[in-house]
Amino acid sequence: MPPPRPVALGLDFGTESVRALFVETGTGRERGTAVVPYKHGVIEKRLPGAGQLPPDWALQHPKDYLDALCEAVQRARKAGKVKPADVVGVGVDFTASTVLPVDAVGTPLCFKKEFARHPHAYVKLWKHHAAQAQADRVNELALQRGESFLKRYGAGVSCEWMISKALETLEHDAPVYDAAAKWIEAGDWVVWQLGGQEVRSSCGAGYKACWAEAEGHPSEDFLAALNPKLRDLRAKMQGPVRAPGVRAGALTPEWAKRLELNEGTPVATMIIDAHAAVPAGSLSNAGDLAIILGTSFCHMLLGARGAPGDVRGVAGSVRDGILPGLMAYEAGQAGGGDLWAWCVRTCANEALVKEARAKRKTPHALLAAKAARYKPGACGVLALDWLNGNRSPLNRPELSGLFVGVTLATPPEALYRALQEGLAFGTRVILETFESQGLPVKRVVTSGGIAEKDPAFLQILADVTGKTIEVTRSSQACAVGAAILGAVAAGSGNGGHDGFASAAVAMGGVRPRRFAPDPHALKAYDDLYAEYRALADHFGGGGSEVMKKLRALREG
Amino acid sequence: MPPPRPVALGLDFGTESVRALFVETGTGRERGTAVVPYKHGVIEKRLPGAGQLPPDWALQHPKDYLDALCEAVQRARKAGKVKPADVVGVGVDFTASTVLPVDAVGTPLCFKKEFARHPHAYVKLWKHHAAQAQADRVNELALQRGESFLKRYGAGVSCEWMISKALETLEHDAPVYDAAAKWIEAGDWVVWQLGGQEVRSSCGAGYKACWAEAEGHPSEDFLAALNPKLRDLRAKMQGPVRAPGVRAGALTPEWAKRLELNEGTPVATMIIDAHAAVPAGSLSNAGDLAIILGTSFCHMLLGARGAPGDVRGVAGSVRDGILPGLMAYEAGQAGGGDLWAWCVRTCANEALVKEARAKRKTPHALLAAKAARYKPGACGVLALDWLNGNRSPLNRPELSGLFVGVTLATPPEALYRALQEGLAFGTRVILETFESQGLPVKRVVTSGGIAEKDPAFLQILADVTGKTIEVTRSSQACAVGAAILGAVAAGSGNGGHDGFASAAVAMGGVRPRRFAPDPHALKAYDDLYAEYRALADHFGGGGSEVMKKLRALREG
Repeated sequence: MPPPRPVALGLDFGTESVRALFVETGTGRERGTAVVPYKHGVIEKRLPGAGQLPPDWALQHPKDYLDALCEAVQRARKAGKVKPADVVGVGVDFTASTVLPVDAVGTPLCFKKEFARHPHAYVKLWKHHAAQAQADRVNELALQRGESFLKRYGAGVSCEWMISKALETLEHDAPVYDAAAKWIEAGDWVVWQLGGQEVRSSCGAGYKACWAEAEGHPSEDFLAALNPKLRDLRAKMQGPVRAPGVRAGALTPEWAKRLELNEGTPVATMIIDAHAAVPAGSLSNAGDLAIILGTSFCHMLLGARGAPGDVRGVAGSVRDGILPGLMAYEAGQAGGGDLWAWCVRTCANEALVKEARAKRKTPHALLAAKAARYKPGACGVLALDWLNGNRSPLNRPELSGLFVGVTLATPPEALYRALQEGLAFGTRVILETFESQGLPVKRVVTSGGIAEKDPAFLQILADVTGKTIEVTRSSQACAVGAAILGAVAAGSGNGGHDGFASAAVAMGGVRPRRFAPDPHALKAYDDLYAEYRALADHFGGGGSEVMKKLRALREG
Repeated sequence: MPPPRPVALGLDFGTESVRALFVETGTGRERGTAVVPYKHGVIEKRLPGAGQLPPDWALQHPKDYLDALCEAVQRARKAGKVKPADVVGVGVDFTASTVLPVDAVGTPLCFKKEFARHPHAYVKLWKHHAAQAQADRVNELALQRGESFLKRYGAGVSCEWMISKALETLEHDAPVYDAAAKWIEAGDWVVWQLGGQEVRSSCGAGYKACWAEAEGHPSEDFLAALNPKLRDLRAKMQGPVRAPGVRAGALTPEWAKRLELNEGTPVATMIIDAHAAVPAGSLSNAGDLAIILGTSFCHMLLGARGAPGDVRGVAGSVRDGILPGLMAYEAGQAGGGDLWAWCVRTCANEALVKEARAKRKTPHALLAAKAARYKPGACGVLALDWLNGNRSPLNRPELSGLFVGVTLATPPEALYRALQEGLAFGTRVILETFESQGLPVKRVVTSGGIAEKDPAFLQILADVTGKTIEVTRSSQACAVGAAILGAVAAGSGNGGHDGFASAAVAMGGVRPRRFAPDPHALKAYDDLYAEYRALADHFGGGGSEVMKKLRALREG
């Protein structure tokens, strides 16, 4: 007998914090939410007790996830006056590939005294970019051997992925590698902790661990050819793989107590954070594209079941990777909102800060307001939006940002605007990458902080891409998507839903305000886009390797 | 009978102000100086009574020169306790090409009621860049007709020069052109006012009006082919041409009274401001290079009498253009210190300003101090130093600045350092332009505000170019150079000197501190310089016209 107003709990694990959100499974009404930052945040400079970290490192402490989720759930429950009995299921979305080494029962190696000072024993966050050399070797060898998995990852294997990071560990701290019984996505690890069962998500495995249902993970032969000791990584990556939303377990007594929820509440197999935006935006057809506009951008396109499985320039093509019965393609821009944050950090000069105070705005808001006054393409500056490298379509994290057109009269807002337009051009490159390979983009639904707060950018995105831009109804799209997973894991008999189609219609959706492209702006941007592509080809396509060189010089 | 301690007066007309400096002709001792800004400064946005000015305009009011020089001379004289009878000669240096239209007796047209509201009737300052279309036509036609003058200006005729600006006036305000009996360099005009005689400097005429002793100015046929009405410009540009330092006249009774100096004091033919640094640095041999490091950079190389007269990529090759008996070559970088000023203006963010206050430094000084901590070439960013266009060797003012290598971790000081290195690379390109055409650079003596205040940049310049960098002894190199002209105009019989060689040794010179290149830094910069050249070739040599395009889009 389901409760009268059943709710599902979504746990959205972001880069800096976790959000807990209770959503009514029948109405989509959001009942209570709370965000709790991770105690150690992103560990980039110094691991306490283990000294300075090299450049490009980004670690997290797994205990932070558990502590933060407890606090977030309790605060959200109180805020929403949610009764434990009303909670029909728990869903988890998580950043990826955010991976950690654990022992056979799931205890992170960094929890053990002997490894507490080993940086490689901690969680390597998605934006840990120190395994590029390993990723290069994976790609080179896979290409040479004609490994079939490579076709599914048009841009090749990323330095962010599990194999690259595990190989990095093996080669820089073999004792940690050896002691790890398993390598696991942090999202799968949290589901294991909560539900008591190790179940791995096909979303994480498919997009980040080179897994496919028919083939499993890359072969032991291939792994051993990379490094003889890596042969056993296949075994270390294995575990039961299920689609997101499938019931992975049920709240253990210990966790029920810690969260003050009922023991036995179903826990769903996790989904990658960005991917949760697809059900949240109520997207379920081939040609639907969800874009997360956050500190970085992530693009998830649904394709027909028979659509190609080997698309160039995308991060991954996974059958059933997001929704059952459909192909799903993921692409990404490694920089997004953090480019504007860089611009504000760098260029919010004293005059701007003073003016902002007088106008009771933040410096960021004032800079954005000034940037919004330019006509399309008329700020005088063109930027390559690669300040954090290029993810799609080039998969080259060593690339960097470029500004051209700077004059003595260039104000900070011109650089800001150039970054906005550059990011929109970068999105257009991705859309064209899909479309040129027979994958039409029919609908674009955005979510994330920038979709929420920055209508000026959404208009630029519409004007640059020529697509109407929609926005997911909830401000917490990923958490809603996670809650949808929880509802699906519960099933209709228990107050949830039997499948995504029904859950997404009931719990997800878009806002009435849509951003349609302006034909004049579209034309102005077409011109500038041609220049952007030429720059991108020159600096990203082999014409000049100056970005790689500068990076090498900077790192000495 | 010369006075016991004779002094010469140097008048150094810069972009914003005039400096008066009295220098003892026997010892070089500086006796008194004063700087007075021009009342209207640089008129870039709005000409009072004539409304808004278009982009790229830069006017001045000629009355400002006279008012400011009176005040400066009187204040300097008092400060130095200089007696009128001790002053043996007056020399003038002036920005160029800074030109104005005047009537037959030298009255500026803008002084007349009927032209007071005509922007074209005012002084067009060197950095008035609105005559590019005219300059393009001059170059195109001269090339087509095989005009011999073109060979002397390797980079072609600039939009800054007299012909371009006069043609602009003719085509946009014909009544002003028609009413002008003469077009004259402002420096020659000031000499005319003070000394009562119209005498034009071979330095101004040679470098800025396409004049050479053997040929005079461009032919009437050529001018008429540009525009039939321009035929008479040759006549309007003419007047007796003399080398800098030749006696052009003597203080008129009116000016003797205004300046409280003696009537009849010799007034020398003017020199272009930057060129005055050559005698001030006591340079007098083929292979000597003077560089002015100011808001922009200017490079003056002396060549043997028989050295080539047609050097590609330099602004001008003029026989006797600076010192009698030698070839002199001028090149330039359109941006210099003003690039750092842009960087400070743009990137002196709140944190930096706070830190600067706490450390009792200016934000600029703090930014420079942080930039100085990078190892050579290791700031991660490479800049094309074209934020104000490229003067030498490309003569393309429509080019713009570029930054590559920017990441989310790039701080303001990395942009600052990249601009320092970019400017040094730009200087190296100019040195190589000279040397690749058989003009060795044997000695480099710098002067100007940056030579004065920025030893870190001088070291970068040494490390990038591989040359030992010296600094002119006086902090007021141009004014000392102007005073040397005054001493030469006076002659040794009157307490001055018979010629530059003697005057420059007595009154000019360099400091003991020299900046020698560090071999390790030189090697690091060699690598990066190759990348700079590749970027410069791509964006300045036809690979990409994106800079031109962005400028057009910005200007609508």
